Amino acid sequence: MAAAAGPGPGPGEAGSGPVGGRGPVLTPGTMNPAVRRVEYAVRGPIVTRALQLEQDLRQGVPKPFTEVIKANIGDAQAMGQRPITFLRQVTALCLYPELLTDPSIPADAKDRARRLLAACGGQSAGAYSASPGIELVRQDVARFIQRRDGVPASPQNIFLATGASDAIVSILKLLVSGSGGSRTGVLIPIPQYPLYSAAVAELSAVQLNYYLAEERCWALDPAELRRALAEGRRHCCPRVLCIINPGNPTGQVQSRQCIEDVIKFAFEEKLFLMADEVYQDNIYAEGSAFHSFKKVLFEMGPPYSEVVELASFHSISKGFMGECGFRSGYVEVVNMDPEVQQQLAKLVSVRLCPPVPGQILLDAVVNPPQPGDPSYELFITEKQAVLSALAHKARLTQEIFNQTPGIHCNPVQGAMYSFPRIELPPRALAAAEAQGQAPDMFFCMKLLEETGICVVPGSGFGQREGTFHFRMTILPPTEKLQVLLEKLSSFYTKFVKEYS
Amino acid sequence: MAAAAGPGPGPGEAGSGPVGGRGPVLTPGTMNPAVRRVEYAVRGPIVTRALQLEQDLRQGVPKPFTEVIKANIGDAQAMGQRPITFLRQVTALCLYPELLTDPSIPADAKDRARRLLAACGGQSAGAYSASPGIELVRQDVARFIQRRDGVPASPQNIFLATGASDAIVSILKLLVSGSGGSRTGVLIPIPQYPLYSAAVAELSAVQLNYYLAEERCWALDPAELRRALAEGRRHCCPRVLCIINPGNPTGQVQSRQCIEDVIKFAFEEKLFLMADEVYQDNIYAEGSAFHSFKKVLFEMGPPYSEVVELASFHSISKGFMGECGFRSGYVEVVNMDPEVQQQLAKLVSVRLCPPVPGQILLDAVVNPPQPGDPSYELFITEKQAVLSALAHKARLTQEIFNQTPGIHCNPVQGAMYSFPRIELPPRALAAAEAQGQAPDMFFCMKLLEETGICVVPGSGFGQREGTFHFRMTILPPTEKLQVLLEKLSSFYTKFVKEYS
Repeated sequence: MAAAAGPGPGPGEAGSGPVGGRGPVLTPGTMNPAVRRVEYAVRGPIVTRALQLEQDLRQGVPKPFTEVIKANIGDAQAMGQRPITFLRQVTALCLYPELLTDPSIPADAKDRARRLLAACGGQSAGAYSASPGIELVRQDVARFIQRRDGVPASPQNIFLATGASDAIVSILKLLVSGSGGSRTGVLIPIPQYPLYSAAVAELSAVQLNYYLAEERCWALDPAELRRALAEGRRHCCPRVLCIINPGNPTGQVQSRQCIEDVIKFAFEEKLFLMADEVYQDNIYAEGSAFHSFKKVLFEMGPPYSEVVELASFHSISKGFMGECGFRSGYVEVVNMDPEVQQQLAKLVSVRLCPPVPGQILLDAVVNPPQPGDPSYELFITEKQAVLSALAHKARLTQEIFNQTPGIHCNPVQGAMYSFPRIELPPRALAAAEAQGQAPDMFFCMKLLEETGICVVPGSGFGQREGTFHFRMTILPPTEKLQVLLEKLSSFYTKFVKEYS
Repeated sequence: MAAAAGPGPGPGEAGSGPVGGRGPVLTPGTMNPAVRRVEYAVRGPIVTRALQLEQDLRQGVPKPFTEVIKANIGDAQAMGQRPITFLRQVTALCLYPELLTDPSIPADAKDRARRLLAACGGQSAGAYSASPGIELVRQDVARFIQRRDGVPASPQNIFLATGASDAIVSILKLLVSGSGGSRTGVLIPIPQYPLYSAAVAELSAVQLNYYLAEERCWALDPAELRRALAEGRRHCCPRVLCIINPGNPTGQVQSRQCIEDVIKFAFEEKLFLMADEVYQDNIYAEGSAFHSFKKVLFEMGPPYSEVVELASFHSISKGFMGECGFRSGYVEVVNMDPEVQQQLAKLVSVRLCPPVPGQILLDAVVNPPQPGDPSYELFITEKQAVLSALAHKARLTQEIFNQTPGIHCNPVQGAMYSFPRIELPPRALAAAEAQGQAPDMFFCMKLLEETGICVVPGSGFGQREGTFHFRMTILPPTEKLQVLLEKLSSFYTKFVKEYS
């Protein structure tokens, strides 16, 4: 602790700061050290540099490229994907109900809007909703899950949130306790989505890494889980197991068998399961299918289905809709202690409610037009167009990368990213070290400066010591993506030559 | 720590739980104790009971009333206030740009929407924005502040957020550090808005109460501030001073002199100032005016203006717009250490961005139609109608309450609440104690059960030992509010008689 953190000087007894005998209260030395430890690579230094380069281009500074392409973040609409018409119609109607008389908007969208407005306080999207979300939307989410899994779901177990990130942090908050050797340990996959490491750091919990098997298409290996758990037990109290399926940044889709193994492991080892299933609609590879943890848990039956605690997360930011800007998602909790669940309800009430426009859009997603409805044809056409384009781009990515000696890209079975491994020559490692950068950060920065392509170094997600990767979205339009992949591959080849 | 928090049993070595030889991981005993300590009265047990009563009414259970009136929360649109047309037009246009060809929507709303869409990723409200908010909106907020204060404001110091609550918690997070006697102490007014106590509890900081002077219309007394600070210094490290102006739940508007005193105090005592100014548009009393902390700080000049660190919060949930459901607000930071400010930028990036529809609506609020614009007349008419109705209701509330012996209501100078003091007879105190309830909770629960009126007991906000209050919004429509106030007053009289 710096001096300023101790009892401050009384009036008159001036401190030693620079202005008026008084320095600032809040300094890098006195601020919350847990916040300092937080890192979030997806919007880290490389993105800051990308924004500067964009600014330079706008001001006419000459660059070896004409456009910065932000392939760093899963933001479909920023990459030109068009919103799904029905979803936006329902939401716009709720925000500006005068449109209910607009003849150009189909009747089913209007019916949805009327039904949702009737469920809002004062029939307005401008009123707070109940803290866990509008009751009607929670009911619709429960029905959606029930259709998906063939297993009952209750609105009482569903908490809407300001994006899945918000829900993930709320659940982690409940789970974190203890200090020193009794601190909560949280098992997270490596590579991981850095929200997990950031939240664990902010909450002063202990991050326990289990490594996905790159050589088996990023499969989750129960033996590796056991190793990570045993190691964690030496210095903390592991209580939480996070799984991301389909994987981010790794794009794998887990097999049903794997999920069963994980559930057994959580049962035996007394772990709370957090299943990040926000990419459940994004499955591309032949033979791959999404199995929800809840469905598998209930198919396994007792004792698992009666006791394993599970929180499953979903979002409107990904899938075919890509409505990131609305910040909407939910968590379903299964087998949660009722008193803890009340504590969760209390915790979320402090922030009043998730954004209502996002709740409305989420409702339209989980309760889409049905065959025969006026909006059905357009809705299905738009949805399929997005998903089939993504499937095509997933294959394209893998193909082009794997044609390049030194780049090794697993199949993008699902989600929105490729996470290729790149071999870097020793002289590149030395040059990176000289600049105090991780080798893949060094590579990605050079790539950005020379081509305008912004991808995130693997070190921001975690990777096996001595291996190097980057995460790149598959979201740019097909023709653009193809050019991008070719540019990136030839830059890589040139880079390797330069540092060999 | 309960047994479950220790290292779990290995596979095979069953625990002692009830199902399959294994109890739950997450129990009231093992959960985060800081979350258990959180309380949030505005959505606490009384609101839970109100929701049950509403359910009962819907199912035809006979009650001594026909409607539950939720005067517990500052939710204008839930109480029937209509949204401001221009704000909703701009937002609906951005969400569904097909409306840009709709001849019924005025040209200035369309111009705003085009300008905002051009500032969104992929020209879509469905893309993530920059983490501190859309740059254009931050520029418009800066211009708004500059017009208000006559002092320069920079978009770089403005962070948009998911409501002011989100911004308040982010700033508090930065400020909290230390353990034991070096823990950060946070001075908050009593009565307070319970977001503050909830956030302080969750962050394991130390709450330091300074009492507002009820006998002087809830004025802030610098001597009381000094007392609270001196007491706090005995057991923690006070570093933050929170002010709510106009006051919530107390409705006072601070004088310029008072704000100057507070700034001097913060300067001398090395405190970081957090100014909750979300009710800045809600000023009703003659002779009262809103003075922003920033304006006063800069008018005071050096050394104050160069060194006192200030975070000022604003929101679209209150004012004349009452757009709570959109969850949008901002913080402006003044004199913050640049490196700390970078840490703040990093911290907010983990949650990606505030909801874009709310950012858009905020832009329309800070950049309203100007004289001559097609939307100007309607906008001003709607805005003035809301504000003059609120001013009328503020006076009405005070008048009716003060006609009732035993109820003492300070003038509602600003904000959206009355916070009357009620005298409770000793037998009522005994009856409350017998039920394990705070006396004002006992009163408010009885009020709810007999009249359907839901108000929040003063104990949820804090009050001087031995005094009792409740918070009630002034938001119901005038005729309804009059009936409500009369019902409440006569219930109080009856209650006092019953327990005397």
